[in-house]
Amino acid sequence: MSSSATARTDFFARHEVLLRRAADAVTERGYFSAYPESPSKSVYGEEAPAAGEAAFRARLDKPFDLPGHPGEAGAVGAEVSPYGLKLGITYPRVDPAEAVAVARTAGRAWRRATPDERAGVAAEILARLNAASFEMAHAVHHTTGQPFVMAFQAGGANAQDRGLEAVAYAWAAQKRHPATASWVKPQRKGEPIALDKTFTPVGRGVSVLVACNTFPTWNGYPGLFASLVTGNPVIVKPHANAVLPLALSVRLARDVLAEAGFDPNVVLLAAEAADGRSAQPLATHPDVRIVDFTGSTRFGDWLEDNARQAAVHTEKAGLNTVVLDSTDDYKGLLRNLAFSLSLYSGQMCTTPQNLYVPRSGLRGDQGVKTPAEFAADLSGALDKLLGDPQRAAGTLGALATGAVLDRVEKARTVGSVRYGGRPVEHPEYPQAVLRTPLVAVLDATEDAEVYRAEWFGPVSFVIATDSTEHSLDLLRETIGRFGALTATVHSTEEPVLEAAREAALDAGVHLAENFTGQVFVNQSAAFSDFHGSQANPAASATLTDPAFVTGRFAVLQSRRPATPADEEGGRA
Amino acid sequence: MSSSATARTDFFARHEVLLRRAADAVTERGYFSAYPESPSKSVYGEEAPAAGEAAFRARLDKPFDLPGHPGEAGAVGAEVSPYGLKLGITYPRVDPAEAVAVARTAGRAWRRATPDERAGVAAEILARLNAASFEMAHAVHHTTGQPFVMAFQAGGANAQDRGLEAVAYAWAAQKRHPATASWVKPQRKGEPIALDKTFTPVGRGVSVLVACNTFPTWNGYPGLFASLVTGNPVIVKPHANAVLPLALSVRLARDVLAEAGFDPNVVLLAAEAADGRSAQPLATHPDVRIVDFTGSTRFGDWLEDNARQAAVHTEKAGLNTVVLDSTDDYKGLLRNLAFSLSLYSGQMCTTPQNLYVPRSGLRGDQGVKTPAEFAADLSGALDKLLGDPQRAAGTLGALATGAVLDRVEKARTVGSVRYGGRPVEHPEYPQAVLRTPLVAVLDATEDAEVYRAEWFGPVSFVIATDSTEHSLDLLRETIGRFGALTATVHSTEEPVLEAAREAALDAGVHLAENFTGQVFVNQSAAFSDFHGSQANPAASATLTDPAFVTGRFAVLQSRRPATPADEEGGRA
Repeated sequence: MSSSATARTDFFARHEVLLRRAADAVTERGYFSAYPESPSKSVYGEEAPAAGEAAFRARLDKPFDLPGHPGEAGAVGAEVSPYGLKLGITYPRVDPAEAVAVARTAGRAWRRATPDERAGVAAEILARLNAASFEMAHAVHHTTGQPFVMAFQAGGANAQDRGLEAVAYAWAAQKRHPATASWVKPQRKGEPIALDKTFTPVGRGVSVLVACNTFPTWNGYPGLFASLVTGNPVIVKPHANAVLPLALSVRLARDVLAEAGFDPNVVLLAAEAADGRSAQPLATHPDVRIVDFTGSTRFGDWLEDNARQAAVHTEKAGLNTVVLDSTDDYKGLLRNLAFSLSLYSGQMCTTPQNLYVPRSGLRGDQGVKTPAEFAADLSGALDKLLGDPQRAAGTLGALATGAVLDRVEKARTVGSVRYGGRPVEHPEYPQAVLRTPLVAVLDATEDAEVYRAEWFGPVSFVIATDSTEHSLDLLRETIGRFGALTATVHSTEEPVLEAAREAALDAGVHLAENFTGQVFVNQSAAFSDFHGSQANPAASATLTDPAFVTGRFAVLQSRRPATPADEEGGRA
Repeated sequence: MSSSATARTDFFARHEVLLRRAADAVTERGYFSAYPESPSKSVYGEEAPAAGEAAFRARLDKPFDLPGHPGEAGAVGAEVSPYGLKLGITYPRVDPAEAVAVARTAGRAWRRATPDERAGVAAEILARLNAASFEMAHAVHHTTGQPFVMAFQAGGANAQDRGLEAVAYAWAAQKRHPATASWVKPQRKGEPIALDKTFTPVGRGVSVLVACNTFPTWNGYPGLFASLVTGNPVIVKPHANAVLPLALSVRLARDVLAEAGFDPNVVLLAAEAADGRSAQPLATHPDVRIVDFTGSTRFGDWLEDNARQAAVHTEKAGLNTVVLDSTDDYKGLLRNLAFSLSLYSGQMCTTPQNLYVPRSGLRGDQGVKTPAEFAADLSGALDKLLGDPQRAAGTLGALATGAVLDRVEKARTVGSVRYGGRPVEHPEYPQAVLRTPLVAVLDATEDAEVYRAEWFGPVSFVIATDSTEHSLDLLRETIGRFGALTATVHSTEEPVLEAAREAALDAGVHLAENFTGQVFVNQSAAFSDFHGSQANPAASATLTDPAFVTGRFAVLQSRRPATPADEEGGRA
């Protein structure tokens, strides 16, 4: 046995208990987390914060080192932090066809590894990612504009949990059938017929991950790890604005692969310039059999239409909806919703956009609130939440791109009444662009064109409807047609909640009911919450469910006689 | 509780033990069968054969009765048995858009049933299909041309087993996550945050089954039952030549649904005239979200290209391959292969077509056989197998269509030497058209165009190659490009078998090794053998694996605070 074979076994043995626990957790769906989300010295060590920042700083203004990676080193890269810092890091540029060919070659030995070996390698990659969480937090912070603590959590620990969740599903799915079986069929006369059978999970082929600007790791890891563990090489195509978090991830993955005796080119980085269009040739290459994508509806639809040779998993966008009927905690409702709208300036695929209030008003412990009154109260809650600049910056982060800012400006022209959308100065980074959430009051009928489009960023609408029933009809119709990742209902009436559940099942969207405390609809917890449903246009994938992994591999069988077929011989 | 609700519960309770056993069997993959395949009075009862035939005869020459079925009753139907009998049965004609609308409406209550209830209904349908096995055998025999015993087995018991296998996968997949979960997240300070969560499997939408002429039930039941059990209404679109087997199945399904208190229109029959084209509008209807298809590559590719709104599962065709290297049981090999080529006149998607023999010869216990010598010996084995007319008829069945006969005639013009293809008179049905398998000797290089196409029916090629390595290269290349459902290798050398396994993994095809006894590569046993691999162009579906069921439903969640969020109240 070679030393590399020993290393493979070690990684599985090292992580087997965790893998078993994670595989149980996905079927139990209670609370489970493998990676602490608190950026605390008591958890990660006294030196970790400073060491992480130093590691991040040390990468600036030089080529990113990826030993043995194909392509032209240091050829592309122009990341500028939403907080103003020019990263100055360059990455290798690889021709798409070359990347696919290299990945395919590297994938041959990876295919022959067992699901246990592959899961062990994946768990070790995640362990190293976790150890690098502070460095990753800086990388995510300075590429996405997420506030630092959120970058640590969503970009680090929570993303690692989502990765482990995908590992658990992929590992369990391949172990659902035995590696071998004996088939003994009784005969009405004479001896039974016996066959020995072998079942081998085989990866589908080269996998391509097309990642997004805002959540490169959280949205990227599930596809990356699901493909890896099911035996597929993966080409990681980051968004040009957010390369570093995935370059760090690729680098750690390649280290672990090499230590385990595999070709590190099982995981490749396909960075490109901001005007690059490599996602198209990568995703449509005949040898690419799996594509994972997070991003715009336009490009997601393009991939679904054109990457016909591949299993395509998309998370696109939609009209996240809140139906406001009644509440017994109006202040809690406002606080909760204000935070949901503010977190990372609404640049989350889960941020509510369309808030439906009956013209007759939202009933509650603070009286009846018309749509206009509710919008004013919500604006007040936002002002309270974001009044302190330090706290505002820690909640809003920074606008990731000029396109988001343009959308806020454009939203100033819609609706009858508008609140918010005002600039906030970042106490630490004067170059960062921040806006408080803009809330506009619309009419369900007159302004249909406005709220039936997605306004990604800090823009939400309080929409006056005829009744809660009308609100639920709108939920059903708009989400069925345009998609959504989240829906929320506030009601004190059980029949209304029942009707909301039925509407959510019709629309194919996950529902949150009466969130007034410290859980927010934007948050989706690995191992418990499904993210995306495949049941409405917002996503053709769910993070993570069995459908997310079963299409990434096939089980191939061979069968042979178990005993000599007759006295003339047969297989010994 | 209404009486219909009681009936639902009964069906699950009645079949729960069987469902559990079936769910275990699919993960064990040893031998399991729920429905006896022997058409024996000792198994099915003294009266069963005569009663089954009488039931079949009673349906001839009249409209097929489907109480409550939409459409114009008795409007279409022109089935003529390959054995000469004109069935004279007519079926309702339903407009595709009406069928989809009716199914959609019926599906609403079906969605609300639990996975247990749906699995219970499905198991009861299968029990009634099993009780009707003799009637079904006549229906399959007289629509497909299968010999009677095969029609009983493949069209009855084995098809029912494949159906139950799909039920087991679909049922287990929906129970993989709990119906409810409690999520309690510890906080670094203060009380934990607690949510109650509900998880509901929801069917994707209307499902359409486009069935084939030759195996309407065996190939049709998996998709039908997988969709039903995952909560989808199903429109069954039979081939115009083989409506009756599926009409019987639909009728029994509707009976059980009605008894369980559901709208029988959860299962519809969409029969059409021989020149009908209703598969296209059905499969591409916006509300149709699942399509199952067995048939030609041409139409399967069309569905994959055009039914973009649906999850499409196809079983098409390919170049089933045998690599002949060496054997220690030459006579057994010939007997086994002769039967494989003869069974139902090669009209199986699993029948071998391309038999590769090195020019230097197949080595074995009977000496070295050149391709020409092997073809002559195989022809001798075929003559021996088919020498007795009664046995020949019981093995060959009848050619299903004139197109198959044309193909045999066309094959008389290819290759250097040809055997077989001779007419056989059916001892009972003089109108039946039978041909012994035609075996032509080809050269791997010169005749590439001939054997790189599918010749569905009793046509096979002995192809002279440079070496076994060359044969394996051809297996890899032709199956990778054109697909195959079966591959076989004969070798006494372990390194050759290893190389064949590797080539089969590359090509994405299931492998049979050294079949010389009473198991034939055409046979695919439910609960143990995977049929189709999704890993080569012959099939985008596997009967049955988790991927076959996971795309038919989504799990939607709702979540709500488990406790008052704070002292101001929250949900009680």
